[in-house]
Amino acid sequence: LIFKMGRKTLIGVIGPRIEKEYSSKDIENAKRIGELVAENNWILLSGGMNGGVMEAVNVGARSKKGLTLGILPNDDKSTHSKDVDIPIITNMRSGRNYMLVLSCDVVIACGMGAGTASEVSLALQAQKNIILLNDDEESKTFFKKIGGEQIHIVDNPEDAITLTKEILSND
Amino acid sequence: LIFKMGRKTLIGVIGPRIEKEYSSKDIENAKRIGELVAENNWILLSGGMNGGVMEAVNVGARSKKGLTLGILPNDDKSTHSKDVDIPIITNMRSGRNYMLVLSCDVVIACGMGAGTASEVSLALQAQKNIILLNDDEESKTFFKKIGGEQIHIVDNPEDAITLTKEILSND
Amino acid sequence: LIFKMGRKTLIGVIGPRIEKEYSSKDIENAKRIGELVAENNWILLSGGMNGGVMEAVNVGARSKKGLTLGILPNDDKSTHSKDVDIPIITNMRSGRNYMLVLSCDVVIACGMGAGTASEVSLALQAQKNIILLNDDEESKTFFKKIGGEQIHIVDNPEDAITLTKEILSND
Amino acid sequence: LIFKMGRKTLIGVIGPRIEKEYSSKDIENAKRIGELVAENNWILLSGGMNGGVMEAVNVGARSKKGLTLGILPNDDKSTHSKDVDIPIITNMRSGRNYMLVLSCDVVIACGMGAGTASEVSLALQAQKNIILLNDDEESKTFFKKIGGEQIHIVDNPEDAITLTKEILSND
Repeated sequence: LIFKMGRKTLIGVIGPRIEKEYSSKDIENAKRIGELVAENNWILLSGGMNGGVMEAVNVGARSKKGLTLGILPNDDKSTHSKDVDIPIITNMRSGRNYMLVLSCDVVIACGMGAGTASEVSLALQAQKNIILLNDDEESKTFFKKIGGEQIHIVDNPEDAITLTKEILSND
Repeated sequence: LIFKMGRKTLIGVIGPRIEKEYSSKDIENAKRIGELVAENNWILLSGGMNGGVMEAVNVGARSKKGLTLGILPNDDKSTHSKDVDIPIITNMRSGRNYMLVLSCDVVIACGMGAGTASEVSLALQAQKNIILLNDDEESKTFFKKIGGEQIHIVDNPEDAITLTKEILSND
Repeated sequence: LIFKMGRKTLIGVIGPRIEKEYSSKDIENAKRIGELVAENNWILLSGGMNGGVMEAVNVGARSKKGLTLGILPNDDKSTHSKDVDIPIITNMRSGRNYMLVLSCDVVIACGMGAGTASEVSLALQAQKNIILLNDDEESKTFFKKIGGEQIHIVDNPEDAITLTKEILSND
Repeated sequence: LIFKMGRKTLIGVIGPRIEKEYSSKDIENAKRIGELVAENNWILLSGGMNGGVMEAVNVGARSKKGLTLGILPNDDKSTHSKDVDIPIITNMRSGRNYMLVLSCDVVIACGMGAGTASEVSLALQAQKNIILLNDDEESKTFFKKIGGEQIHIVDNPEDAITLTKEILSND
């Protein structure tokens, strides 16, 4: 891993861990997003748990030698993704969802479920830009309605990254 | 105020504080729900801030001599509702949204916005029953989809209270 | 229970739950403080767990028909004191120590251990008045040194309550 | 910066930010500890604010091209140290003290004040090893009494690092 010194760019990727909440396409997208985050020398922030989208994005980032941070709900290592380089333990259960989005320069939501919905909502409150990548039409309609210009909808990982670059360059 | 000794029933009422996120009907509903919570000798839990739904529900509960608890995001008293009897200060900003729903026996959402959406989502994660009372069709469609039987939709404060009693009697 | 309407006075009583950290005198003192808090129509705030000082103070307060609030670290009811009327669930483990002291008008520490020391320290940061009642000379010397006039040292529950009244009347 | 892939070692360095709570020797020690943490390829965790020990340790680490993480109490960038590479925003005020110690493999306390005392106490609760480096005899006596073998007392930065290596090798 090689980083320039100074303030790093932190890209948060959020998404479900529970099997009934994600599709195989969500997993594929998450892995690809992780790869692209790493290739751009951004640091990946995620919920840090094993399983589902949370794990896939860390696997992707590490496969491209990215640095991965997990904002973890508990201190039970058996539930943590092995591909997290820097585990930040909060012991706050879902209270960590807020901490996760607060620290991100851009939030990318890959898939949708109750935990992800809480993170998108909290990111809206924190005035973050959020990119939605999923097949759940109801979530896109709802969040676009309450989030307006903070909500960006994309169809694939590459567009998510292009949009991330645009948002970062406007900050 | 007269209470029987022992574990109290805590009813959480959540809803927007920001003007663009609530209607006058939301305020009316919140005030009525506050009255009914007090008349049932339940303790009202809310976000505790002044303004909007958050304030109206406390005003309603106090008008019927209910006991009101606020789970507050900050320690700035000038932003707190004067109708909160017991202010619990968290200094966690929106992180308090999680604490608020965790402590409730039933959650009633009156109106809809980003903060309220985060609380509904976090309540889903915490396996709570949530009653939605608002005119925002997109939110009802979305939360019913991700929340299934935990999400209950009603048209007026009286139905919200009837349903609350049913849920409490099944616990 | 009979309360006047309006903002309540919240007295936090903190102290160890682990057996090696408290003496039988600490338990006796905690029970007596709980009784006196209730007799003064103040609301008792505590860590809310069963066992040790935390339980004793709730037992004392309830024996005099006081209202008791617990700021709880977890949602495992089997670990909670049965004498807590209003359980506020944080799911933040020891992170709840900060929430507990923030909400108090006065903090009384009965006994001493690592958890109690964290609460006294956090209460100092939050500019609270703290009354220490214990036989641990090292803790009194240390906290008096770092806390100055915020730290008050007493020898018995009655003096703790007299001092609490003085502090409240100066607020 | 060059890192090997995989789980990183996180060394927490805590200490006062307020002028009356630290000495010039504390600042010197903090800077030196920061340098040594970086030279050992460990990642530095701190409270992340500007001023005092908190800033000095980040300055030291960066001067040796270390990677620095700050667990920050707020989102007000004007109060953050410029030498933090990865700012984790909690918006929990002093509630972040708990998060900070939870994530550390070893905690080094350089100087002493109310905030530092809360972190040492919370680290004790979290079963961490804590190294104390300061001239405050009362704090060493007190924490040694309540912390036993978890508390290690040293006289200079070099000994703190030697001890850190020993603790890490025993984990």
